[in-house]
Amino acid sequence: MRLSQLFTKTSKTIPADETARNAQLLIQAGFIHKEMAGVYSYLPLGKRVLDNIEQIVREEMNALGGIEVQLSILQPKDIWEKTDRWDDDKVDNWFKTKLKNGTELGISLTNEEPLTNALGGFINSYKDLPAYVYQIHSKFRNELRAKSGLMRGREFLMKDLYSFCRTQEEHNAFYENAALAYMKVYDRLGIGDTTYRTYASGGIFSKFSDEFQTLSDVGEDTIYVHEDKRVAVNKEVFTDEVLSDLGFKREELIEKRAVEVGNIFSLGTKYADALNVYYTDEQGERQSIIMGCYGLGISRLMGLLAEHFADDKGLVWPEAVAPAKVYLVRLGDDEATVKQADELYNRLTAAGVGVLYDDRDLRAGAKFADADLTGIPYRVVISDKTRVAGVYELKARGSEDSQQLNQAELLKTLDV
Amino acid sequence: MRLSQLFTKTSKTIPADETARNAQLLIQAGFIHKEMAGVYSYLPLGKRVLDNIEQIVREEMNALGGIEVQLSILQPKDIWEKTDRWDDDKVDNWFKTKLKNGTELGISLTNEEPLTNALGGFINSYKDLPAYVYQIHSKFRNELRAKSGLMRGREFLMKDLYSFCRTQEEHNAFYENAALAYMKVYDRLGIGDTTYRTYASGGIFSKFSDEFQTLSDVGEDTIYVHEDKRVAVNKEVFTDEVLSDLGFKREELIEKRAVEVGNIFSLGTKYADALNVYYTDEQGERQSIIMGCYGLGISRLMGLLAEHFADDKGLVWPEAVAPAKVYLVRLGDDEATVKQADELYNRLTAAGVGVLYDDRDLRAGAKFADADLTGIPYRVVISDKTRVAGVYELKARGSEDSQQLNQAELLKTLDV
Repeated sequence: MRLSQLFTKTSKTIPADETARNAQLLIQAGFIHKEMAGVYSYLPLGKRVLDNIEQIVREEMNALGGIEVQLSILQPKDIWEKTDRWDDDKVDNWFKTKLKNGTELGISLTNEEPLTNALGGFINSYKDLPAYVYQIHSKFRNELRAKSGLMRGREFLMKDLYSFCRTQEEHNAFYENAALAYMKVYDRLGIGDTTYRTYASGGIFSKFSDEFQTLSDVGEDTIYVHEDKRVAVNKEVFTDEVLSDLGFKREELIEKRAVEVGNIFSLGTKYADALNVYYTDEQGERQSIIMGCYGLGISRLMGLLAEHFADDKGLVWPEAVAPAKVYLVRLGDDEATVKQADELYNRLTAAGVGVLYDDRDLRAGAKFADADLTGIPYRVVISDKTRVAGVYELKARGSEDSQQLNQAELLKTLDV
Repeated sequence: MRLSQLFTKTSKTIPADETARNAQLLIQAGFIHKEMAGVYSYLPLGKRVLDNIEQIVREEMNALGGIEVQLSILQPKDIWEKTDRWDDDKVDNWFKTKLKNGTELGISLTNEEPLTNALGGFINSYKDLPAYVYQIHSKFRNELRAKSGLMRGREFLMKDLYSFCRTQEEHNAFYENAALAYMKVYDRLGIGDTTYRTYASGGIFSKFSDEFQTLSDVGEDTIYVHEDKRVAVNKEVFTDEVLSDLGFKREELIEKRAVEVGNIFSLGTKYADALNVYYTDEQGERQSIIMGCYGLGISRLMGLLAEHFADDKGLVWPEAVAPAKVYLVRLGDDEATVKQADELYNRLTAAGVGVLYDDRDLRAGAKFADADLTGIPYRVVISDKTRVAGVYELKARGSEDSQQLNQAELLKTLDV
C-alpha cells in the first residue's frame, strides 16, 4: 500500500481521553478510531492486524476439528429465559434493544443458548455427536466502565467455540486438545513464552476452569506462576487447599500481573438440559450432552500485542500479525530513485510481501518516526545516496543498527 | 468435509413459519437457522456461501481502489444529530440501545456519519483526497415486517463503500467505475445477464441514483427494461419526462419484476458539510467534499442466488459461491470401495477442490436427494459396482444425465 493513498495519518498528540497505552498508541498510529469509551472502529492498518490474528485463530480452530458458523447478533429472549440468564439481575452486562412491536431482544454477549438451540434441531442419535462449533464475530458487553482500550471493550471481536460431547472422557480429551490449540495460537502470536495456562475458578461441573494469562505489568489479574511446570494459579483460587490439591508448594510460585487472553470452561450438562437438547445412546436411552466453551478475544489480543511489544518509539508488531512486513522509505525524488523504489515495491508486492510504501512528500525524520510508530518489522530506505552507492539500507524495528545490503542480500533477508 | 462430521441435516419439511422460498430452501438444506423473522444464523454450509460471496465483493472493491475498514456497530447519538438522522421520526428503522448510565446508542444501519467523522481527523489538504473506503459488516434495520427471508433482513451482512472526492468530475469518474465493478460482481455470481443498471430516484444532488436489479418473479420492485441498451428504469421514476430525458420510447421498455441487488448514490456535500469536514485546496481555500455511497447486500445476494437458481429438487449454486464443488456419494461399504472413495476425497481436497463427502450410513436415494437439495455443482458416485467397472459416475447438478468416466477423465472434468 502506498501511504500517499492511505487516508489515515499518525499523530504526535497522546489522546487526552485515553488512559490505556494500547489505545493511545493505536490511535496515534492511525490504526483505530475511538467512537466512545470501549468502542473502536478499525481503520485500514488496524483492520489488517485484526484479520491476521483472526486467521491464525481460525487455522488453529480448524486444525482442532472446529467447524465455523456465524450466529446472529440479535437474539430472542425466550431461549435465555430457559437458562435464567435474561434478567439484568442475573446477567448484568446485557445490551438490549426492541422490535417495533415492543418485543425485547438481546445483543450477543455469548452464545451457549442460541447455538445449543440451533443444534437441537439436528441432534438425535449418538451418531450425531460430538460437535465442535465456533464463530468469530462481534460481541457486546455493557461494561459500567471501559478504560483499558481494546483489552476490555463494550464492543469487541471474539472467537467462541462450543463443544458438545457424549461422555466425560470425550469432553476431557477435547478440552485438553483445545488447551494445546490455544498455546499454538499464542506461540504464533509471539507470546507463547510469556503466556501460562492458569487454574481459575470452576463452576458446578468442574473444580477449575482454565485461563490463559500473559504476563504484563498492566494486567488486571494477579497470578502465581510455577515456572518449572509452566502453569499458574489465579489469585482467586490461590488457597492452601488448592495448592495441596495441585501438589504445589507456596514458595515455588511467584506473584505476577497478567492479562487474560483466553479462557476455556467445562459447562457440564446445564445448558443442553435447560434447552431440552439430548441424544439417544446405542441402547436407545436418552442422555444428557456435556458442553464446554472456549473463548478467545481477537481484538483484546490486538490490544495486548500493541501494548506488550511497544517501546518508547511506538508499536512493535510480531511479523505474524503486522499490517505489512516492510516499511519502504523513499527519500529524495530523483527520477532514478523514484524508479528504484517503485520497482522494489512492485517486486515485493508481487512476491506476496506486504509493504507500506512511504512515497509521501515528507522529511526523512518524519518518515522514520512514522516507520517506528507504525511498528512494521523491517524498514528499508532508498535514497539518492543509497542508489548511487548501489545499496539498500535495512533496519529491523527492534534494532538500533541498520545494514547496507545489495539487492540479492536484501531479498534473501526478507525471504523473497 | 465429511458429512458424518457435519452436525447439520437436511429436512423434507417446509418450515411452516417461512413464506420466502429462499429461506425455506436454505433452512431445509441446513444452511441457516432462523432466530426470528428477518434474523438468521449461518450454519457451516451457509457460512461458506456467505464467505464466498464476500470474497468476490472484496476483490472487486479492492480492484476499484477501495480500502477496507471495520466500523463499530454501536454508534454515538451526537454525530447522527448533526445530520438530523437520529430521531425515529426522521429515520424510522433504527435499532437503539443504552449504556448503563442511560446514554442512548444507535445500532449500525448505515455509516455515512461515523465514517465521515472518523475521516475528518485525517483530512486537511487536497493531497489527502480522494478516499474510497469500504467495510463488510453486520447491519441492522428495524423493519416492521420481515418475510422475504434473506432478501430483506432485520440483521444482514452488507458491503458499504463511501467515496470522498474533491470535484464533481473526480466523483463522477469514480461513480462510473463503481458501477462497472458492481457489474463484475454480478457476472462472477452468474447473474450478470439478468441484472440491469436501473435509473431510480435521486436526491438533492443528482437527478437519479443507480440501482442494480436482477430479474426475478419474486422481486419486490417493478422495473422497465430496455433490452438493447441493457439498462432499466424503476417504476418510481417511470414518467414521460424521465423517458424523454433519457431518450427512450415507452414502447421500447418491458415491465419486469426484479430484486434490488445493489445501489449507488451521489450524496453531494451534505454529510461532510454537516459534520464540518472540509479540505483546503491548492489556493488555500476551504472546500466542500463530495461524497457517494455504494451499497451491496451480501446476505441478500445469498438469498437471491438461492431462490433464483433453485429448481424443484432444491438449491443450485453457481460454482463461484457453492459451499463445495463436488458432492461425493459413497454407496456400499466394501473395504475397497471405502478406500477408493477416501482416496478420491483426499486427492481432491489436497488439490484445493471443495468436497462434501457423503460417508454416512444412508440409502442411495437419501444421499442423492441430499446432493440435489444441497445444490453442489458436481455429484460423483463411487459404489461397489462402479469400482468393479473401473469408472466414476459424474452428474452436474443442473443436468439429468450422468456420465461414466475413468479417473483421468473425471479429474480433467473437475479441473484438477
